[in-house]
Amino acid sequence: MTTLFSRATVLPMTTADAPRTFTGWVGVEDNRIVLVTASEEEAAAFRAAHPALREIDCRGKLLMPGLVNTHCHAAMTLQRSYADDLSLMTWLNDYIWPFEARQTPDEVVLGMTLGVVEMLLGGITSFVDMYFSESSCVAPVEALGIRAVLGCSYFDSNAEATFREVEEAARLAAAGSGRVRIAVAPHAPYTVSPENLRRGKALADRCGLSLTVHLAETQDEVRIVRDRYGCTPVEHLDALGLLDARCIAAHCIHVTDSDIATLAARGVTVSHNPQSNMKIASGVAPVEKLRAAGALVTVATDGPCSNNDLDLFEELRTASFLQKSATGDPTALPAWEALRMATANGARAMGYSDGELGVIRAGALADLIVVDLQKPHLQPVHDVVSNIVYCGKAADVDTVMVDGRIVVEHRRIEGVDLPELYARMSEAIARIASAK
Amino acid sequence: MTTLFSRATVLPMTTADAPRTFTGWVGVEDNRIVLVTASEEEAAAFRAAHPALREIDCRGKLLMPGLVNTHCHAAMTLQRSYADDLSLMTWLNDYIWPFEARQTPDEVVLGMTLGVVEMLLGGITSFVDMYFSESSCVAPVEALGIRAVLGCSYFDSNAEATFREVEEAARLAAAGSGRVRIAVAPHAPYTVSPENLRRGKALADRCGLSLTVHLAETQDEVRIVRDRYGCTPVEHLDALGLLDARCIAAHCIHVTDSDIATLAARGVTVSHNPQSNMKIASGVAPVEKLRAAGALVTVATDGPCSNNDLDLFEELRTASFLQKSATGDPTALPAWEALRMATANGARAMGYSDGELGVIRAGALADLIVVDLQKPHLQPVHDVVSNIVYCGKAADVDTVMVDGRIVVEHRRIEGVDLPELYARMSEAIARIASAK
Repeated sequence: MTTLFSRATVLPMTTADAPRTFTGWVGVEDNRIVLVTASEEEAAAFRAAHPALREIDCRGKLLMPGLVNTHCHAAMTLQRSYADDLSLMTWLNDYIWPFEARQTPDEVVLGMTLGVVEMLLGGITSFVDMYFSESSCVAPVEALGIRAVLGCSYFDSNAEATFREVEEAARLAAAGSGRVRIAVAPHAPYTVSPENLRRGKALADRCGLSLTVHLAETQDEVRIVRDRYGCTPVEHLDALGLLDARCIAAHCIHVTDSDIATLAARGVTVSHNPQSNMKIASGVAPVEKLRAAGALVTVATDGPCSNNDLDLFEELRTASFLQKSATGDPTALPAWEALRMATANGARAMGYSDGELGVIRAGALADLIVVDLQKPHLQPVHDVVSNIVYCGKAADVDTVMVDGRIVVEHRRIEGVDLPELYARMSEAIARIASAK
Repeated sequence: MTTLFSRATVLPMTTADAPRTFTGWVGVEDNRIVLVTASEEEAAAFRAAHPALREIDCRGKLLMPGLVNTHCHAAMTLQRSYADDLSLMTWLNDYIWPFEARQTPDEVVLGMTLGVVEMLLGGITSFVDMYFSESSCVAPVEALGIRAVLGCSYFDSNAEATFREVEEAARLAAAGSGRVRIAVAPHAPYTVSPENLRRGKALADRCGLSLTVHLAETQDEVRIVRDRYGCTPVEHLDALGLLDARCIAAHCIHVTDSDIATLAARGVTVSHNPQSNMKIASGVAPVEKLRAAGALVTVATDGPCSNNDLDLFEELRTASFLQKSATGDPTALPAWEALRMATANGARAMGYSDGELGVIRAGALADLIVVDLQKPHLQPVHDVVSNIVYCGKAADVDTVMVDGRIVVEHRRIEGVDLPELYARMSEAIARIASAK
């Protein structure tokens, strides 16, 4: 299939230091971008060479790379707004864990489906997940058309079963398009034993998979790890060999300067989850320090139970606002850098090399979003990047392409009956509640 | 005109301690709510008694009071995303003030129009503004159908002219529907002399107007006021007699415990602007302490130049998230309390008595919004208040009624040609730029 996006304001995200936009055309063949031009003549030649192409008029709209959400528990849409404004241990012990104990793999798939639908409609074209029953989610996620790394999560109690599930999930993913990959996902340094952390990493290495883990999220975690192992959570995982360029570490809030240097030196992806961190009162991640040290910092929503939505536009600006507020410096984490975290940096976290994803250039994978700029809150346009980062909304996303395929068109998602999905979610939460 | 909202999930916001919702009908005659019922029979009787009524089917939708934005510089849509990620004094001296010096009153009206359109589409039915050329805005704001308190802002340099403008604006407003009121708006304790602060308050009292002022926004302000007057900004305004129940004080970030007690004792409305405070790195207002002391705390967007949008749904959750983060307590400022700040509390700030605005009860003014709950990010519904506060978006607002008149219907705003408005905004900013 060939597609031509026409007369868009194009934001390629290919420059490191400052945004560059132009009005032009972007052509896609199969799953790759093959044309990026400001020349009407080149566009006409492309049109002539591909008589069956589909042309999408993008006048008054922005064409940019899709957003990458590097930490999520998408199926927890099941628990969205189930239990809020509680202390952490009350929340987990009295609400979340008992709820999760009653839900079935089919219900997890349902929750995942709603989460993926929400993400696609909000311009998220790739996400890293961490949850249970991920092997059941491979086919549904593949069918929805999004790009994903599905992390099979484990505590010590289910480590064995999860290691088996990882191999099964990886086999299912390998049989697909390549858009869905699997990761090993130990829950955290304080909830998984050193032995099971090491075994998870060995499994990941053996199967060529990424590893994703919660890291240094709370002061309690730091205290527990220090009491138990005499070091910081980062030092602990580093000593066990988990920290490398295939590791995606969520949160990294309570880290020392030495920890920051380690995260940067090992090439770990730091996944910053600003709204979740604020809502759970976990603390503020030192994003500016991490960036200054050269760490690969990305941005994420966390699960819909601690956020409570999967809206990366909001996370972008919250990331920027929170760094400004916490450092007392209004120049901290400018709009452009926040947007790079959610595109080019996120693409590297997904396991793609520089320039292969998260940018608009010939040869890159075609994960693209069209944002409608003809909205009161996006006018006038002094600076389109500031408008997108500081005013952009998930609902401004008009059209979404993943891997060369249009999956959202004029805010409608192909192949999903939303009223039926909502009805099934209502039934699921009623069943889980009655199973108390 | 008579309107009947049918089969809505109704959130009346009439209870102090916990939300109560029901499925039912709300009837409006002229500009007042006259029927609030869960009884199909009562709805049928109302329908029979008003054969010409307009019925709005609200199945699957939430009907709630419109939101109140208690601090805004709406016309600064002209400078939206004009200058971001800068230090405060660079921002003001090199960008904002030179820009403002070149703009005409007609351009201010244009900026105000775009701001009001954005607010109405996002479910804001009332706002408190503070800017220049407010007298020119009275008629356009009245025509757009929103409820407003327009604060005529002054420094020492334009105090005389502004005092004259206040009287003219109040005359224009009094000739209208009563939806638009005028306030006296000294800029801040450190930018207006004690004499001009006192004169502004005397004028407000003489004309029966509110007074709105920036207060204790930055540490610099506290230092300047202490150096100059030997007291805190709150003590300074209190000594000058400005602090009473007709005063709306924006920010109140750098306040002592004694200042907090004063704000509560005087019945001052505190307008909390969380996203602006974060973006400008002003600090974090002690909202939980203010609430505990009994102060009337409300929530606001501030101007679109320091936010950069006019989206009160985002402010609601940012207010909650920021208090949780800053206090380290995830139970701080729960969803319900944040929503009360934006409805019932805001209504009192607008000068209405308890129960007259910001609630759904028979006798109250009909400022109502219909929120479409059939969206992926608002499903499932464990708790509709958590969903609205933690996941709700401006774009979820389907229909808006102010003072009994439908001003937004299915996200379309009556009587405004948006493409033309955007074109005129573009022309205005091009003209202002070329006037450099």
